[in-house]
Amino acid sequence: MAITVVGSVAFDTIETPAGKRERCLGGAATYFSLSASYFTDVRVIAVVGEDFGRRQQEVFESHKIDTQGIEHTKGKSFFWEGSYLENLNEAKTHNTELNVFATFSPKIPDSYKDSQYLFLANIDPVLQRRVREQMPDVKLVAGDTMNYWIKDHRPALLEVLKGLDILLINDTEAKMLAGNNNLVQAARAVLALGPKTLVVKHGEYGATLFHRASPVSELAIEPEVEGTKIFRAPALPLEEVVDPTGAGDSFAGGFFGYLASQPEQTPAAFRSAMFYGSVMGSFACERFGTERLQQLTRKEIDDRFNLFRELTHLD
Amino acid sequence: MAITVVGSVAFDTIETPAGKRERCLGGAATYFSLSASYFTDVRVIAVVGEDFGRRQQEVFESHKIDTQGIEHTKGKSFFWEGSYLENLNEAKTHNTELNVFATFSPKIPDSYKDSQYLFLANIDPVLQRRVREQMPDVKLVAGDTMNYWIKDHRPALLEVLKGLDILLINDTEAKMLAGNNNLVQAARAVLALGPKTLVVKHGEYGATLFHRASPVSELAIEPEVEGTKIFRAPALPLEEVVDPTGAGDSFAGGFFGYLASQPEQTPAAFRSAMFYGSVMGSFACERFGTERLQQLTRKEIDDRFNLFRELTHLD
Repeated sequence: MAITVVGSVAFDTIETPAGKRERCLGGAATYFSLSASYFTDVRVIAVVGEDFGRRQQEVFESHKIDTQGIEHTKGKSFFWEGSYLENLNEAKTHNTELNVFATFSPKIPDSYKDSQYLFLANIDPVLQRRVREQMPDVKLVAGDTMNYWIKDHRPALLEVLKGLDILLINDTEAKMLAGNNNLVQAARAVLALGPKTLVVKHGEYGATLFHRASPVSELAIEPEVEGTKIFRAPALPLEEVVDPTGAGDSFAGGFFGYLASQPEQTPAAFRSAMFYGSVMGSFACERFGTERLQQLTRKEIDDRFNLFRELTHLD
Repeated sequence: MAITVVGSVAFDTIETPAGKRERCLGGAATYFSLSASYFTDVRVIAVVGEDFGRRQQEVFESHKIDTQGIEHTKGKSFFWEGSYLENLNEAKTHNTELNVFATFSPKIPDSYKDSQYLFLANIDPVLQRRVREQMPDVKLVAGDTMNYWIKDHRPALLEVLKGLDILLINDTEAKMLAGNNNLVQAARAVLALGPKTLVVKHGEYGATLFHRASPVSELAIEPEVEGTKIFRAPALPLEEVVDPTGAGDSFAGGFFGYLASQPEQTPAAFRSAMFYGSVMGSFACERFGTERLQQLTRKEIDDRFNLFRELTHLD
């Protein structure tokens, strides 16, 4: 089933201990789309400037990603420059230019309107909500956000959370959103804000899914720990992290792409989705930008899925 | 099969967000022994002062832990005072009094000498080595250490590492010992120093086992990632961490205790040992000091083992 994703398509200049790349194709919607494209049809809503040309377009087209919803406008695309020289787990931002993104007003092509899955990548919650409201009939809505919106745009973000089935954020964001430093307590507080399911990404330590335990819950994820249903997926310890940019969006793409490819959202589907998310996040780190995500095969993905199983399973 | 453990038996004054306890029974050898006692026979080598009385003795005796090797001497037992008010993952030490530990010279009772398993808890590497040399016939030796010995007593520590089969340390210690911030590269460097197996404890994120891949290796742990065999065990996300003191020693006790209880060290035994380590570490955090470890049943331990399996397994 098709996923519509709204988010940024951008150029990134990235420096890591492994080297430096100027103006790679990036942005949350790009990483998400490429990652999800290995599992299901993907349709993008974004805005780009005149610097987005044939070469960038082909990256999407070669993965059969629908780009009708990418608006082309005068000016330059969103640009981000950052480095990970001291800490591979946290980017240091040197420059952010919103450019054409500053006035972005997402428009949903009619051909996208039958999408059953919607992913609201990390953008202004006001825009996330506008897209959500224009697609009232989707079956499952997932979203991401970041510290900036949590701290300074809380009321708008809380409105978005009410309309989400699944929120995917990292440890720091979950604790900040809940105002609580204990992960389980923070997760419970976030689930009370709207989402039925919360996926907390732990970077190199994997990710944890929390699901609201409710007698009428359609999703019987087990086991239940103190009233919340929990599942943990590992991450692969990597010999060399070349570039962690987009790992979280790639996780989301693998997770949601796999879910959308399944006939039903069973507990088993959620468990596998967590593993596929972790698999796609690990691939993303192996090369600069989206290089690795552009060149995968489904066999490589499934081989790594099996490696993750072996890495963590008792038998 | 019996394990002999050498390490500290101490009194701890601990403050956490959950409250404060004065002079709890503590010390690495205490946590290790109690944890391992649920799996196999344990014999302790330590030194205590006149403040170690009938009540403390009974904690060991009620778990059938052999205390012949606990030397009683004039003065006070080792004392540590610390708090976790800002960060539950890292203790802030307020006071350390070595007391009788300052002149500790481990003596091994003859009745311990047929032990096939030896655990060198975190003490001066000179003492670790002295005990190791007096027990040349053990089948498997594991050990722990800490940043202080890594930084300031490196030559003595390196001698100990040469005689270890298994080293159990945390992320920071592994990276410091290797002088490398990448976990996989650090693990490989540590394995080159002697131990065949390295277990890196990640606190609330579980633990990773690294095993030297070698064609003649007797331990065929799978899978192999870039030349090193790896296995990951989760930790249980806890609603309330009452007191993390001793969680690492409890992990070691569960891990090594389970291994010692098995007829052979197969890959399956190592995998289960990692899970039992994580299980015992999670119990340790649920009450102050050794309170929770004193009152477990094997059924509670196995129930939690099964919960960990459910928490992480695809099916």
